[in-house]
Amino acid sequence: MPTVTPEQVANAYAALMSGDRNQIEQYWAEDMRWYVPGHNLLSGWKEGLDGFLGFMRQVGELSGNSFHMENLCTTTSDEYSADVTRNRGQRAGNPAKQLDITAVHVLRWRDGKVTEGRGAIMGDGTAQYDQFWSPV
Amino acid sequence: MPTVTPEQVANAYAALMSGDRNQIEQYWAEDMRWYVPGHNLLSGWKEGLDGFLGFMRQVGELSGNSFHMENLCTTTSDEYSADVTRNRGQRAGNPAKQLDITAVHVLRWRDGKVTEGRGAIMGDGTAQYDQFWSPV
Amino acid sequence: MPTVTPEQVANAYAALMSGDRNQIEQYWAEDMRWYVPGHNLLSGWKEGLDGFLGFMRQVGELSGNSFHMENLCTTTSDEYSADVTRNRGQRAGNPAKQLDITAVHVLRWRDGKVTEGRGAIMGDGTAQYDQFWSPV
Amino acid sequence: MPTVTPEQVANAYAALMSGDRNQIEQYWAEDMRWYVPGHNLLSGWKEGLDGFLGFMRQVGELSGNSFHMENLCTTTSDEYSADVTRNRGQRAGNPAKQLDITAVHVLRWRDGKVTEGRGAIMGDGTAQYDQFWSPV
Repeated sequence: MPTVTPEQVANAYAALMSGDRNQIEQYWAEDMRWYVPGHNLLSGWKEGLDGFLGFMRQVGELSGNSFHMENLCTTTSDEYSADVTRNRGQRAGNPAKQLDITAVHVLRWRDGKVTEGRGAIMGDGTAQYDQFWSPV
Repeated sequence: MPTVTPEQVANAYAALMSGDRNQIEQYWAEDMRWYVPGHNLLSGWKEGLDGFLGFMRQVGELSGNSFHMENLCTTTSDEYSADVTRNRGQRAGNPAKQLDITAVHVLRWRDGKVTEGRGAIMGDGTAQYDQFWSPV
Repeated sequence: MPTVTPEQVANAYAALMSGDRNQIEQYWAEDMRWYVPGHNLLSGWKEGLDGFLGFMRQVGELSGNSFHMENLCTTTSDEYSADVTRNRGQRAGNPAKQLDITAVHVLRWRDGKVTEGRGAIMGDGTAQYDQFWSPV
Repeated sequence: MPTVTPEQVANAYAALMSGDRNQIEQYWAEDMRWYVPGHNLLSGWKEGLDGFLGFMRQVGELSGNSFHMENLCTTTSDEYSADVTRNRGQRAGNPAKQLDITAVHVLRWRDGKVTEGRGAIMGDGTAQYDQFWSPV
């Protein structure tokens, strides 16, 4: 029987979107880390909740807060969850530069909080993601 | 309560690895399709169980049967599963060309069989995957 | 004083476009080789004039003969030439898949014939080139 | 007869390497621009001599001044030059991250000075170049 539930996953993202640090800390561990795919300027490990939130802020700034995640499905186990989301956005100041990718986030949980997240992108979306964040 | 179980996922891959068509058909639907990530010569949708098995055969040939998948975790829901695997291999005739990536496969299930699978690769593995299959 | 002239370069490409093997052999050496950039299914060394012409045929087939090169400038030395061309085309059967890149071809010459050619693509055109030839 | 000579090209790069602004201004126009290939954090147009020198400084910093260019050949016309160089380096603080690519620089000249430069990379070097500058 899974101890991680789809509801927890939904709550964790809702807390993240609220921007409220107290709410966020209920679902995301202080010592968490997050792995951004691709080889663009955002790629790589973001260490700590502060590193992760800094990454989220950068996504917001570079996309003029147009970045939008739509959940397609969520799977869970006793220690992990995987949610598939369609992510869309456009670059701030450059509406012709569009992103439309489907990603999976694999989250690791401990005591009801996310301790690690790793993203991966379907189809040819990694190339699109690299180009979206590129200065070119 | 999930109707897809980690055991089913493990059995589906074991059937696939057996190479036995009867076993395979117990877990993989005839009208299934599979989405290979990246923009290399293997990328894109493989239609039907035959298309999927043809893709698997091509992976075997190009890697001299060195391709190896190691399961790291599996998550499930009532309709989907997501398994994270570390995939390693080397190109046939070119042992210096190594692959070592961590991928997620999101499987959709219907009546105990996989009807759709989509792969996604973590970190900078998509670039590595594209280069691994390249003639260069 | 350069022994390779822009006229020779123009003549070599005109011969290539004619499709006439006798004309082609006047400018392209039998033992030539050609290096296709990127990591797509066409990438890598094409060995011999036959290998090179086979590559050109494949470009024609995959693009429904829509592939078009427009010369932007040509530079020469005593042994080499470099021509910059804007290359445009669309995938056969998929007119929405467009290519529009600017490439440089560096040719090495011996006794009035090309013995080696290497392509390189400006800006983010290599990613576009890889995606253009991808099955995705 | 070419008005741009291989000597001028060699002098322009030697001036650049000297780091002496007076020398540099003899070969590189104040209103020049430079186009960096790929889709990494350095990619795109660098506007003005200051933009170009800022880019060169960034290359120096990120590579711990290990970046080294070796000229392989230079071709010229009345208005352009193209030089092929092998570029090698390693990331500052990460000697395992190596770069070894062959690039072409197409320079446009006016009154003895470079007004525009565009880089392009041979083989699969653009992917290597993108990965070299990536934080991953």
